[in-house]
Amino acid sequence: MTNPIFPTLCVVGPGLIGSSVLRRAKLDRSIAHRLIAYDRNPSVLERARALELADVVTDDLTAAVADADCVMLCVPVGAIPEVAAKALPAMKPGAILTDVGSTRRSVLDGVLPFLRPDVAYVPAHPMAGTEHSGPDAGFSTLFEQRWCLLTPIDNTPPNAIARMEALWHAMGARTRIMDVEHHDKVCAIVSHLPHLIAFTICGTADTLADEMRSEVLDFAASGFRDFTRIAASDPTMWRDIFLHNRKALLEVLDRFSDDAKNMADAIRGGDDATIVATIERGRRIRRSLIENKQA
Amino acid sequence: MTNPIFPTLCVVGPGLIGSSVLRRAKLDRSIAHRLIAYDRNPSVLERARALELADVVTDDLTAAVADADCVMLCVPVGAIPEVAAKALPAMKPGAILTDVGSTRRSVLDGVLPFLRPDVAYVPAHPMAGTEHSGPDAGFSTLFEQRWCLLTPIDNTPPNAIARMEALWHAMGARTRIMDVEHHDKVCAIVSHLPHLIAFTICGTADTLADEMRSEVLDFAASGFRDFTRIAASDPTMWRDIFLHNRKALLEVLDRFSDDAKNMADAIRGGDDATIVATIERGRRIRRSLIENKQA
Ligand SMILES: NC(=O)c1ccc[n+]([C@@H]2O[C@H](COP(=O)([O-])OP(=O)(O)OC[C@H]3O[C@@H](n4cnc5c(N)ncnc54)[C@H](OP(=O)(O)O)[C@@H]3O)[C@@H](O)[C@H]2O)c1
Ligand SMILES: NC(=O)c1ccc[n+]([C@@H]2O[C@H](COP(=O)([O-])OP(=O)(O)OC[C@H]3O[C@@H](n4cnc5c(N)ncnc54)[C@H](OP(=O)(O)O)[C@@H]3O)[C@@H](O)[C@H]2O)c1
Repeated sequence: MTNPIFPTLCVVGPGLIGSSVLRRAKLDRSIAHRLIAYDRNPSVLERARALELADVVTDDLTAAVADADCVMLCVPVGAIPEVAAKALPAMKPGAILTDVGSTRRSVLDGVLPFLRPDVAYVPAHPMAGTEHSGPDAGFSTLFEQRWCLLTPIDNTPPNAIARMEALWHAMGARTRIMDVEHHDKVCAIVSHLPHLIAFTICGTADTLADEMRSEVLDFAASGFRDFTRIAASDPTMWRDIFLHNRKALLEVLDRFSDDAKNMADAIRGGDDATIVATIERGRRIRRSLIENKQA
Repeated sequence: MTNPIFPTLCVVGPGLIGSSVLRRAKLDRSIAHRLIAYDRNPSVLERARALELADVVTDDLTAAVADADCVMLCVPVGAIPEVAAKALPAMKPGAILTDVGSTRRSVLDGVLPFLRPDVAYVPAHPMAGTEHSGPDAGFSTLFEQRWCLLTPIDNTPPNAIARMEALWHAMGARTRIMDVEHHDKVCAIVSHLPHLIAFTICGTADTLADEMRSEVLDFAASGFRDFTRIAASDPTMWRDIFLHNRKALLEVLDRFSDDAKNMADAIRGGDDATIVATIERGRRIRRSLIENKQA
């Protein structure tokens, strides 16, 4: 048997992302020989046990991380710093701390004060997910063909980065190393703004007069439905993402609002050319996606 | 053999919608014994012939409609009045004129001056479509389980409405009779606003700095991709819809913009409660859709 990437892997928060990592790791012990899962929530622990997500499922964070060669925090971004602060003192020298948070700058700022020189921190954001959450929502193929963005800091040892890349490759993902600020901008436009807009438009529909709302539901298939799927995602996770990527998100939201205002003005003024130009710009992005085999 | 709903059906503009109607009608001659297709565009006619969409495929509008018991206009909403003006004088007494336009008030106003007392006009809007267009994009099951909204006018004879309902039921659709203004408001929120927003956000992404744009494409799977699918739709069709449903659309866009601004303020101010309330409202709509079996 070849050596696994990590003898022991500990997942903190076996929800959608964490349980998917565990499921994939269980399929093939080349990622880790031994799997540990920690959660604070008794019902999550119960499901994790019933689903046999790990060799050890515990509510004792210190015990969970003490033996691990890699500790992966899969909790909402707002909770990552406090969980890191509790986990770090119990980790063994030479181990790697990582997380899967969807925002980077604020998480990094929150975690930095608690870092130890003998534990490498390698933040990684797998660009994969669904609108569901919790341990039952995960599946082993979630990361296949998807990207995982690593945002190591200046003093992260190269071999720690290499091991985390190996872990995500073993999950079926492609990896890319990215600067923290750049990560937050790219994610603001490809993920955070679309979610914010989807939540907002569904909210707008919900505040319509009662009679209209029932018809919104009846006739949702024509465009609206796609937005509701996005908008079904977990409130805590998204509240945290919006607050923690505030700067980049508000910047792209500003741009979008200007563009929407220009479109409104064009429609109000019957300005054919501007309307068609905006539509064509939108289509161009779609065509590029199809060429990129991402559509 | 039982009598068909119409001895002869003429489809003007066998694009996505028109060719889907013809494909379904060909499967089962109980909708019409004889099928005629007219288009002004030689390449559309060529494809219509190659696909054998109708018994007669012609570029002569007068000849196409002269024999038809039902003339269905499947052209962009901006073109419906001018095409109706040309078709009506050549139609036979007792025939029905219908269309499939996505907006109602402006189309009705455009068609009204050309109506004849001996030809019933029954506007109908099938709430079905894809982001593709043209004769090759159609398929016979497009309307199955979908709604078709009929917006008859005061003097439309009830038996003409009944025949059009029968036609759409034979297409597999459910029908609902609706007031013109109400139709335009409902469609503004369930379809036109989501499309406007999807075009706009894709446009916003397209105007980003070059380096970022390539990453937008690489990482589009995380939320953004659903918007690009909607935004792939035909520019002429959507320009027409936006301009022709201007009033209702600008009204819901205003509401949406206010809601987006409130959300931005909440994020800027770190107002947890407002953010979570907006997200929860969006999720409520999704849950209702799932209960309605529309998700
Ligand atoms: N879902 C996606 O699309 C996606 C994609 C990429 C990255 N991510 C990131 O992945 C992380 C997890 O997301 P997810 O979708 O897997 O969420 P999830 O299914 O809700 O799982 C999160 C888990 O963390 C636990 N948790 C929450 N707060 C905690 C705390 N303060 N201390 C300890 N445990 C806590 C939760 O338990 P409780 O029941 O106690 O809350 C739950 O078991 C987030 O940082 C998110 O930004 C998500
Ligand atoms: N697609 C949807 O999702 C959807 C859903 C419900 C209702 N509708 C409505 O259905 C209608 C047709 O949409 P579609 O998606 O089927 O469009 P489409 O695939 O583009 O087909 C439209 C056809 O009409 C022809 N046409 C355009 N302008 C014309 C004119 N002035 N005179 C004669 N023919 C003309 C086009 O030929 P050219 O090549 O010459 O332009 C084309 O063959 C529109 O009113 C639309 O609002 C669409």
